[in-house]
Amino acid sequence: MNAPVLPVTSADIDAAARVLAPFAVRTPLLSPPVLNERVGTRVFLKPEMLQRTGSFKFRGAFNKLSSIPPAARAGGVVAFSSGNHAQGVAAAAQILKMRATIVMPADAPLSKRERTKGYGAEVVLYDRDREDREAIARDIAGKRGATLAPPYDDPLVIAGQGTVGREIAEDMAVLGLAPDIVVAPASGGGLIAGVATAIKARYPQAVLIVAEPAGFDDHTRSLRAGKREPHRAEGRTICDALMASIPGEITFAINARLLTQGITASDAEVAAAVGFAFRELKLVVEPGGAVGLAALLAGHIDVGGKNVVIVLSGGNVDTDMFAKLIS
Amino acid sequence: MNAPVLPVTSADIDAAARVLAPFAVRTPLLSPPVLNERVGTRVFLKPEMLQRTGSFKFRGAFNKLSSIPPAARAGGVVAFSSGNHAQGVAAAAQILKMRATIVMPADAPLSKRERTKGYGAEVVLYDRDREDREAIARDIAGKRGATLAPPYDDPLVIAGQGTVGREIAEDMAVLGLAPDIVVAPASGGGLIAGVATAIKARYPQAVLIVAEPAGFDDHTRSLRAGKREPHRAEGRTICDALMASIPGEITFAINARLLTQGITASDAEVAAAVGFAFRELKLVVEPGGAVGLAALLAGHIDVGGKNVVIVLSGGNVDTDMFAKLIS
Repeated sequence: MNAPVLPVTSADIDAAARVLAPFAVRTPLLSPPVLNERVGTRVFLKPEMLQRTGSFKFRGAFNKLSSIPPAARAGGVVAFSSGNHAQGVAAAAQILKMRATIVMPADAPLSKRERTKGYGAEVVLYDRDREDREAIARDIAGKRGATLAPPYDDPLVIAGQGTVGREIAEDMAVLGLAPDIVVAPASGGGLIAGVATAIKARYPQAVLIVAEPAGFDDHTRSLRAGKREPHRAEGRTICDALMASIPGEITFAINARLLTQGITASDAEVAAAVGFAFRELKLVVEPGGAVGLAALLAGHIDVGGKNVVIVLSGGNVDTDMFAKLIS
Repeated sequence: MNAPVLPVTSADIDAAARVLAPFAVRTPLLSPPVLNERVGTRVFLKPEMLQRTGSFKFRGAFNKLSSIPPAARAGGVVAFSSGNHAQGVAAAAQILKMRATIVMPADAPLSKRERTKGYGAEVVLYDRDREDREAIARDIAGKRGATLAPPYDDPLVIAGQGTVGREIAEDMAVLGLAPDIVVAPASGGGLIAGVATAIKARYPQAVLIVAEPAGFDDHTRSLRAGKREPHRAEGRTICDALMASIPGEITFAINARLLTQGITASDAEVAAAVGFAFRELKLVVEPGGAVGLAALLAGHIDVGGKNVVIVLSGGNVDTDMFAKLIS
């Protein structure tokens, strides 16, 4: 009996790869000796801070915006985002010569707000605790005839993020190795859903793990429960990019089928990982981008003898925060 | 008429590449869109901060130490270095199970001293202004029967560093592009000599440029004069890795033949480049490693329409210094 077809297929990711090829960075797959020696197994890093806009989000945004028919492009695009999706949409819109309006939380890192404006987008701020960003975005979209570019719960966005996994699979194949364990962070779950789709298509035995900040563990809870569950965290984490309260519907339909488990890392473990990446890897990782590495370094992943791939999803961190984290 | 044979050949670099293959990182060649758009031409970065020990120096050190006959290895190795060669030698010695003693200036960045010790080496400090590091190293070598591993003026060291250029040439060939301009920093000149040898062997038309901190421009002066000239700087530069007072004899024999010119960047321009690499490239570059990028960003290189390759030679920078540079 065939399994039911999931909302995003490997063919969708192949198509996204073709759309992205002229514009996205094909990030390398790194395997730093210092990390392999520290962890005692072969570790591969997918450094998405080297992607255009400093995070993987450009991939999904560009794939989504490219699908908008030419006639509808004049209305522009609207997105809501804590920062990395904002930059991805703004940069994609700039390349495609579309107007972009981004609804961002007022407490998003200054660098993310400034960089979003730098790509020519208009930024509308909202209060993360009191206002509904989706409602604000939909209202703007309605008034302007703009297309909404969702941050994760959209097949084209997921397929775009899936090119991260496709590149990992290709590069591991060139090395003659199978990725035994693949770890990526999740906020709404678009990245890990896309990565899992691409990896599982070529390596059905691979174990896919979603990494979350301690407390903000809605994917981990949902995977255990077999249905979408919100996290119970109140307050904040330093992983500003990973604060969605519940997995997406479309992303969870994929993740429930393809992921093995969730793991978490505390803010202190994430800070240590950001510092390790600075001192030893010479890479700038933002807290949310380092949560998988943090879990690895803290010993939360059973790695013995396996080929472990960690997605470092972004590097957009404010100077002050970074200086604090590395000291 | 054939030109006289230089002290290091392309074949020596091929041999070094074979020796290094199991241990050195084959660093990727990056071409960040944000940099291409900023400079208005195609720029390629060779990020040697991703090399083992955080700089290119591991390459030359490992190639040199590997050449020591097994019978002589028991005496260990001695080196003098402001930091990156120290780590390169220490890490190479650790892999080859040799004892390493490193003579370092007392004002070398703390991180470089600590990291050198971390590879199992003994560190002997000296006063940069009052003591002769070569004499100290030779004295230790004599007493212990140790082999001296020079930082640059040695054909095996130069051949090791040349693998940086060999990889650039290979990766550009895969892209179907010729490197029109290749820029690398110099202290004693080993890196640029090796890179120039490898690049010129495949791309005789390439323009090779040596980058130096303003004032510490001994290569620039020497190239103009046609003979080795010291720089006239007094005091310090933030480029702690690039303070040698005069080009090496062997390196200059190569560089005088293969380099087109020297360029310099001020400390302020270097600081701006370190900040740019942090914010936009998400790479940790040390000041000395950023001097070529600094010259590029400051407009000191005539790049119009050309393929420009910049070697970022290392990323070993103290936390406090880095926090200051990026703020």
